[in-house]
Amino acid sequence: MSIHTPVCDLFGIEHPVLLAPMAGVSGGALAAAVSRAGGLGLIGGGYGDADWLEREFDAAGDARIGVGFITWSLARQPHLLDLVLDRTPAVLMLSFGNFKPFLPRIRDGQTKFVVQVQTLDQAREAVDAGVDAIVAQGTEAGGHGGTRATLPFVPAVVDIAKEIPVIAAGGIADGRGLAAALALGASGVLCGSGFFASDESLANDNAKQAAICGSGDDTERSSIFDMARGLDWPPGWNLRTMRNAFTRRWSADLDGLIQNLAEEQARFKAASAAGDTDVAAVIVGEAADLIQLREPAQVSLHRMISQAEDRLRCIVRLVEPTVKD
Amino acid sequence: MSIHTPVCDLFGIEHPVLLAPMAGVSGGALAAAVSRAGGLGLIGGGYGDADWLEREFDAAGDARIGVGFITWSLARQPHLLDLVLDRTPAVLMLSFGNFKPFLPRIRDGQTKFVVQVQTLDQAREAVDAGVDAIVAQGTEAGGHGGTRATLPFVPAVVDIAKEIPVIAAGGIADGRGLAAALALGASGVLCGSGFFASDESLANDNAKQAAICGSGDDTERSSIFDMARGLDWPPGWNLRTMRNAFTRRWSADLDGLIQNLAEEQARFKAASAAGDTDVAAVIVGEAADLIQLREPAQVSLHRMISQAEDRLRCIVRLVEPTVKD
Repeated sequence: MSIHTPVCDLFGIEHPVLLAPMAGVSGGALAAAVSRAGGLGLIGGGYGDADWLEREFDAAGDARIGVGFITWSLARQPHLLDLVLDRTPAVLMLSFGNFKPFLPRIRDGQTKFVVQVQTLDQAREAVDAGVDAIVAQGTEAGGHGGTRATLPFVPAVVDIAKEIPVIAAGGIADGRGLAAALALGASGVLCGSGFFASDESLANDNAKQAAICGSGDDTERSSIFDMARGLDWPPGWNLRTMRNAFTRRWSADLDGLIQNLAEEQARFKAASAAGDTDVAAVIVGEAADLIQLREPAQVSLHRMISQAEDRLRCIVRLVEPTVKD
Repeated sequence: MSIHTPVCDLFGIEHPVLLAPMAGVSGGALAAAVSRAGGLGLIGGGYGDADWLEREFDAAGDARIGVGFITWSLARQPHLLDLVLDRTPAVLMLSFGNFKPFLPRIRDGQTKFVVQVQTLDQAREAVDAGVDAIVAQGTEAGGHGGTRATLPFVPAVVDIAKEIPVIAAGGIADGRGLAAALALGASGVLCGSGFFASDESLANDNAKQAAICGSGDDTERSSIFDMARGLDWPPGWNLRTMRNAFTRRWSADLDGLIQNLAEEQARFKAASAAGDTDVAAVIVGEAADLIQLREPAQVSLHRMISQAEDRLRCIVRLVEPTVKD
């Protein structure tokens, strides 16, 4: 069985499930695994590293994959766009910043242009620009994001997008979330946390274990890990991670972190290298409750499809004729 | 047509839609309208006012309705429970605090006991206590709430609740939200914002208009309106409202508000009486985008059911056999 939506036709895929381009986590192996399972894997271009990008595109082999960038960061090194366009990705997805300067560069055929939005004004901009699809991202997502929540945000974006397919992101890691996204009017889903602990993910093993053991109750949005990484994110977005000793120490004391920044940056860097998840960031979202196994991405994806089909068949049986009909 | 779930059997209702007991907004007329339309209306017991409760129960006439209280506030005036139990409400719903002392008082038959939760630990407590149903409330809800978002929170609560029906709340104001909630495993929905602008709602006319014109992008959670009302809410919950001149002035300056509290409380009180929505609180959630008309509650509820049915029939057609099957 399968679930066929306009997103399947748009991207030429079997299942309407995209791998979120998680920076440093969604590498070529994971993207290829999702694509080979019938979804669409996106490499996480993140803050941009030409060598990393070349290596991960190579790692994907002959799998048909896409790539996502952090828009404001790509704007600082626009040559990276040429690098990835030479690979003819199935989709280029931009998030967090002004995507418009990049749009003319890729309106030439095989690469679809997708923009991820966190507000309705951003959705209107994307519609006006004529993007191929819009990812409506809720605040429950792991990693960077805004304040709107997926459930009420997606239908509001759908109402704006009209004929442009909307892909729901944030909090979706199983078939129930996929079925719900379709109910809201989305044509597909973009999943990060659900693939974070996959065998093929580049996340640190301890981080994968923390995601599996963790709960959505134990995540929060903050800017402290961006400060710890020396990243000057523009206002409007911050990072959802699991809570740990580092968040408990600094989330409510940004001034203190600033005063101790050099020392804390060094501590964070060492912890990240060592896989010390008490200090390093475990970048997953509220869907952590739904991540229960380390397994091949294909297995997660096919279970999601199968569960969504079951849910849809089950709930449609709740609709019943009444005496009045 | 109708959508029949375990919640319909539990409460003896036709449609699995409950009116959220919005304090000062969900009065007897609105609760009765929702119940007469086939859902279940809950009067908003709020901070407790015996005269108001008596009047609003009277206003509901012979409609079968329920009532909801703010638990920590009810604990300060537990005699109000006797008052409402004398009316034999269909359901007593408690939110925000330790519900356990109240449970033995109503385990006697006709009144179902429902607890609203904002964390998984609260959900586990409710299951252990043997409540009749659990409302899983997402942060996108208007009014008081926590930090979890509805879409990933509901399935996590469903996994904990097992056989106990889960009702989704937060961000649901149309049939797409209802269909999504069912897809997530919920047996029904609890809607506040979706009925805030109803004809029968006790909300101020200007507040209804602000909700209709407003967007979920223009809501935020804060504690300033609780300070302005002199309410000592315990930590863990705050209030989602539309943004206005009052939030823009004080949300980022709590110390300033404290220093000017007496003056600002007087200004807030006068604005609330006058329906000045620049200063008074318009207590709706992110579903504001989906509130488009002032109309009878029955019309909204029936449109929600009809739209949910359409969505379910539509998306089940996306499930298709493949060559492999």
